[in-house]
Amino acid sequence: MNALSASPLPFASRMASLRPSAIREILKTTESPDVISFAGGLPAAEFFPCEEIRAAADAVLQSDGPGALQYGITEGYGPLREWAAGHLRETVGLEVPPSQILITHGSQQGLDLLGKVLIDPGDTVIVESPAYLGALQAFQAYQANVVGIPADEEGLRADLLAETLAQVGPRPKFLYLIPNFQNPTGTSMSVRRRREIARLAREHDLLVVEDDPYGRLRYSGEESPALGALPDAGDWAYLGTASKILAPGLRVAWLATSHRGLYEKLVTGKQSCDLHTSTLNQRIVWQAVSQTAWLDSHIRRIRQAYGARRDAMLRTLEMHLPKGAHWTHPDGGLFLWVTLPGAVDTIELLRQAGSCKVAFVPGAPFWVGNVPKNTLRLNFSHAAEPLIEEGIARLGLLVARS
Amino acid sequence: MNALSASPLPFASRMASLRPSAIREILKTTESPDVISFAGGLPAAEFFPCEEIRAAADAVLQSDGPGALQYGITEGYGPLREWAAGHLRETVGLEVPPSQILITHGSQQGLDLLGKVLIDPGDTVIVESPAYLGALQAFQAYQANVVGIPADEEGLRADLLAETLAQVGPRPKFLYLIPNFQNPTGTSMSVRRRREIARLAREHDLLVVEDDPYGRLRYSGEESPALGALPDAGDWAYLGTASKILAPGLRVAWLATSHRGLYEKLVTGKQSCDLHTSTLNQRIVWQAVSQTAWLDSHIRRIRQAYGARRDAMLRTLEMHLPKGAHWTHPDGGLFLWVTLPGAVDTIELLRQAGSCKVAFVPGAPFWVGNVPKNTLRLNFSHAAEPLIEEGIARLGLLVARS
Repeated sequence: MNALSASPLPFASRMASLRPSAIREILKTTESPDVISFAGGLPAAEFFPCEEIRAAADAVLQSDGPGALQYGITEGYGPLREWAAGHLRETVGLEVPPSQILITHGSQQGLDLLGKVLIDPGDTVIVESPAYLGALQAFQAYQANVVGIPADEEGLRADLLAETLAQVGPRPKFLYLIPNFQNPTGTSMSVRRRREIARLAREHDLLVVEDDPYGRLRYSGEESPALGALPDAGDWAYLGTASKILAPGLRVAWLATSHRGLYEKLVTGKQSCDLHTSTLNQRIVWQAVSQTAWLDSHIRRIRQAYGARRDAMLRTLEMHLPKGAHWTHPDGGLFLWVTLPGAVDTIELLRQAGSCKVAFVPGAPFWVGNVPKNTLRLNFSHAAEPLIEEGIARLGLLVARS
Repeated sequence: MNALSASPLPFASRMASLRPSAIREILKTTESPDVISFAGGLPAAEFFPCEEIRAAADAVLQSDGPGALQYGITEGYGPLREWAAGHLRETVGLEVPPSQILITHGSQQGLDLLGKVLIDPGDTVIVESPAYLGALQAFQAYQANVVGIPADEEGLRADLLAETLAQVGPRPKFLYLIPNFQNPTGTSMSVRRRREIARLAREHDLLVVEDDPYGRLRYSGEESPALGALPDAGDWAYLGTASKILAPGLRVAWLATSHRGLYEKLVTGKQSCDLHTSTLNQRIVWQAVSQTAWLDSHIRRIRQAYGARRDAMLRTLEMHLPKGAHWTHPDGGLFLWVTLPGAVDTIELLRQAGSCKVAFVPGAPFWVGNVPKNTLRLNFSHAAEPLIEEGIARLGLLVARS
């Protein structure tokens, strides 16, 4: 009767800090089949294990359909939590019992829950700058005072963290990091830096939130332990996900923590958010990941493919970007980060990008505090090599023209 | 290294209003295979359409696996939103474009999002008393001032709502209702009462949030229109779900609203919560529900089965409960509501229920404001008739002993 009403509604004050992104609007102007986009954070759909997931869904629904379709407990499906505990031990050295692992509807929900459970309006949260946009959104939704600390090629700078911890008044609620192949920069934190940060955090009773969506996607270099696995570690929360090793459309991730009290609050928080993560999807993921040999070979296959795409992008950037531009050389993940010569404003550049049929994400929204205008993020996992080569050539042309 | 730390963490103040339920703890003492439980809110798993969902998953993954497993837009899968728009028009008379329908990870997420988007600490929200616990939790997580209004056999009392609206100071954020087969009471709101409430809400610029998880599960009586479909309606939000017509483990629901601005905030809020609802599950649900003839026959089958269980419970209550006890006679849904003679405290009764091998939910936590001690909720959908008969006999024994 009234399907397009717009009488003013008094929204919660938190919504003032949570606005739709202006860049998302500009990106809409580049949505066209002939545009080569490096803007999304998408894994390559051609490497999704569709057949294995189909077989897993089939097996789950045939062997225990009623169980897979009924309500479940908030904490998550027991066998998947046990698998995750083993997986964390083997891959990043974390020792945590399944009883402190919560299955979430994607890692984004883990970030939202940490915000819900820990952040009062005005509370300080420390992040790397630039930082993952989804995390900034999740924390800003709870009206956090987000403090950004610059990183160098070894990751977040420990000296600046120490300075900040000495300066900020009340105890910050947590430090949020993506130590492996960070979004947006692609940088990884060195083991030495992990030790420094872990020690510093422990000294200051600072909870370390380690988001590790890309950790399994390593194409070069050595594996590093999680910060929480280091001898000096204090309390930590760690987010892992099936999105990058299986597929994001399943929305299944795991949030582990060293802190029993935090775990219990996260469970209570999740119960009020959505009761529990889809029972069916949890079982599908368990069915797939518990085939260890298959999972290993699948991850090897993605690593090879994405590694080749990273190499193609690094090679063509060298050919097409002007002198004075530089970029990161990630050992894994989905993204690399370009810094153009000082005068270029990448938001302006994006406005003109449609005419060159190429798209990227300007760096500005990722920065917290000081905002350089000349950075941008490129995704190298989604497009195949020939498109990467053509797209980077177009980007070079666009930059040359600007 | 530190897997069982418990150093004190400063949680957000909202967590003080969000505590694990004491009754949940007592219910754990009744978890045993020989206990007949009427406590859960579970649909009967034996009526889940496992084979159809298996076939739907198969079809979705075979026809477009990559699409079904990739990230999706926050608003939800287009064809499912279109189906939902048609479904709302046909079943409850709501006219709303698909562009104002948001697919959520279960209706609980819809309630959480309404809280997130609308409630500042101390804001007033009006509910029926007794009310659905999950809604109370969702709103309390945002520190709402929840005001309960008693209902009679026609639903929430319009006269008391008018009084409350005249008394409460600042404009309440919304009125939350389950007009069909309410949880916990099983009562439905009469059409006359819907008209009164809709008119009153419009006069007071009060958003009506109508939660309708059970609407399709009618076993007797006439269908009623949604409050938002009445000529006098002002702004509304309406929550529907696949949980009761297909299966809750899928966690797929739809939230529609007449208010464009509210819709946009809900989308922004959901983006920061979990990006989007599982792409795979949205497509599975669409694949299943768009087979209209099958869906109709499936719903008919559940109605028959649950209707027979309701009848069995009503019949045996008559036989086993003492004089002075009375209960609701729901036309649908999953629950009925028992009021025992005045002196009985149903929380105490539950403590002794384990010895009689029967379980239920005491009424106390559902009440907002005045809390009678002698009420309890019974689920009649989960157990089959012979178990209902035996379980109610046990309940009768327990009450007689108390």
